[in-house]
Amino acid sequence: MNEESFTKKLAALFPQGPDVKVGPGDDCAVLDLGMKELFLAAVDQVISKVHYLEGCPPSYVAGKLLKRNISDIAAMGGLPTHALLSIAVNPMDEEWLALFHEAMAKFSKVYGISVIGGDMARLFTPGEVLSLTILGKVEREKLCLRSGAKKNDLLYATGSFGNSFYSGHHLEFTPRLEEARFLAGNFTHAMQDVSDGLLKDAARMAEASGLALALEPEKVPLRRGASVEAALTNGEDYELLIAVPPSLTFRLERAWSFPTALTRIGKFIEGTPGQVAGTEELNLSQKPTGYDHFQ
Amino acid sequence: MNEESFTKKLAALFPQGPDVKVGPGDDCAVLDLGMKELFLAAVDQVISKVHYLEGCPPSYVAGKLLKRNISDIAAMGGLPTHALLSIAVNPMDEEWLALFHEAMAKFSKVYGISVIGGDMARLFTPGEVLSLTILGKVEREKLCLRSGAKKNDLLYATGSFGNSFYSGHHLEFTPRLEEARFLAGNFTHAMQDVSDGLLKDAARMAEASGLALALEPEKVPLRRGASVEAALTNGEDYELLIAVPPSLTFRLERAWSFPTALTRIGKFIEGTPGQVAGTEELNLSQKPTGYDHFQ
Repeated sequence: MNEESFTKKLAALFPQGPDVKVGPGDDCAVLDLGMKELFLAAVDQVISKVHYLEGCPPSYVAGKLLKRNISDIAAMGGLPTHALLSIAVNPMDEEWLALFHEAMAKFSKVYGISVIGGDMARLFTPGEVLSLTILGKVEREKLCLRSGAKKNDLLYATGSFGNSFYSGHHLEFTPRLEEARFLAGNFTHAMQDVSDGLLKDAARMAEASGLALALEPEKVPLRRGASVEAALTNGEDYELLIAVPPSLTFRLERAWSFPTALTRIGKFIEGTPGQVAGTEELNLSQKPTGYDHFQ
Repeated sequence: MNEESFTKKLAALFPQGPDVKVGPGDDCAVLDLGMKELFLAAVDQVISKVHYLEGCPPSYVAGKLLKRNISDIAAMGGLPTHALLSIAVNPMDEEWLALFHEAMAKFSKVYGISVIGGDMARLFTPGEVLSLTILGKVEREKLCLRSGAKKNDLLYATGSFGNSFYSGHHLEFTPRLEEARFLAGNFTHAMQDVSDGLLKDAARMAEASGLALALEPEKVPLRRGASVEAALTNGEDYELLIAVPPSLTFRLERAWSFPTALTRIGKFIEGTPGQVAGTEELNLSQKPTGYDHFQ
């Protein structure tokens, strides 16, 4: 069984209570707890030798861990509010841990996040496994799911793609929180972030929306050193994919004032849900390089 | 620096927003999100070769991971509602993962918990690192902190202590959720669960309350195979410690109808905060056996 269907099969095991508006499968879970806003929650990990190389400064590790979670909140149109940290390390190196926590405190302050709890345990072998649960909120009218794209919506992407690992982008990126807040509820039928690769994540958005996607790979902005193939498959871009209704594209392109690029790269069309047309002449069988993550 | 003070130093790095009623340091964080109830959140891990032996059936691992988190919610007087799973494994063994998730689904159903999200990633070496974030709620008048004990309060404990690892208790325990709900707000000045060892956790409760504790070690109920020393230091008991006002002890002991033992084992007194008297003649320098966890 491929990873995608296996993960779906596992997620389907869990029944969801009546306050769960969106369960596993989107960038965040969405709960209706009776607050004015909807409540968001997600969890993401960073693991040594998988998500970063040995010797990576702990401040970068902390930044990546927090920011990749913020990217999930951004993709829902929301704002991050609280986080919980789960740390398994060996050795219990006080200097490493102090630097990691100091950086986590610095980054969480920047984003207005309260780190409200954590657990620290010893790993059985040298290395680090770091997990962060992020909580957030989103106004009901701003909530963006990946399943909302409509036929003829245009697919836009922020920023550029590919070569995230060797370029250092995967450590140094800025999550597209402000851009997402500007887009959400104003220009979006659907939104999600790109962590597993543009092609894979765009296909998920199309599939969740019951549509196919006509992609224009030659329009995808390339990060320095990236080929089109790399841009489509490498992942760890932490950019946004947005489904924009055709009636709003003109207004969006005029209103966009961020230094971040915003590029139209495709269109949602009728067809087999999740199928992506336009990549037939590319060689996409190559493995992602430099990192390896399951989900 | 010892682990306790190092952990405190790290937790102090994180400023807390105005909606954080209790930050790091209690069994759960407590948020006031404007809901009728207060919101609870905690995270705890289970790691192969640290929290269970190799070959332990995945259903037991899932049970331990969920139940130790429920024990934290119980200790606040609350009810668990939602959970997020973070999984780092190697190999990506579909059978192991399916059994783990099936058991997690079964246990979460028993406790009425919606598992709303997760992350699965590859570990760099054979083994498993499993983390669960639990969310919950508690009525404002039922909230139990560890800092609420008053001078002359009696210390009660549920169940028995020691030898948790070899007896299998650390896998098979039932979190004291019903007992805690009965106690909370009715008989409690303070409550917490015992995961790191009775002595260490009771001292934390005294310290948080600004009091010393007169412990009566000979009254501590022993789990089969446990010495008094083991009962005080082994940990992973997942029992409750409760500070009961002297005026309520008679009524509590009469009203207690659970099959779980409830035993008076000490008294909070004036003195150096966190100091525990009564263990002077015991040999407590022995290391915990069979498991090894930092926090």
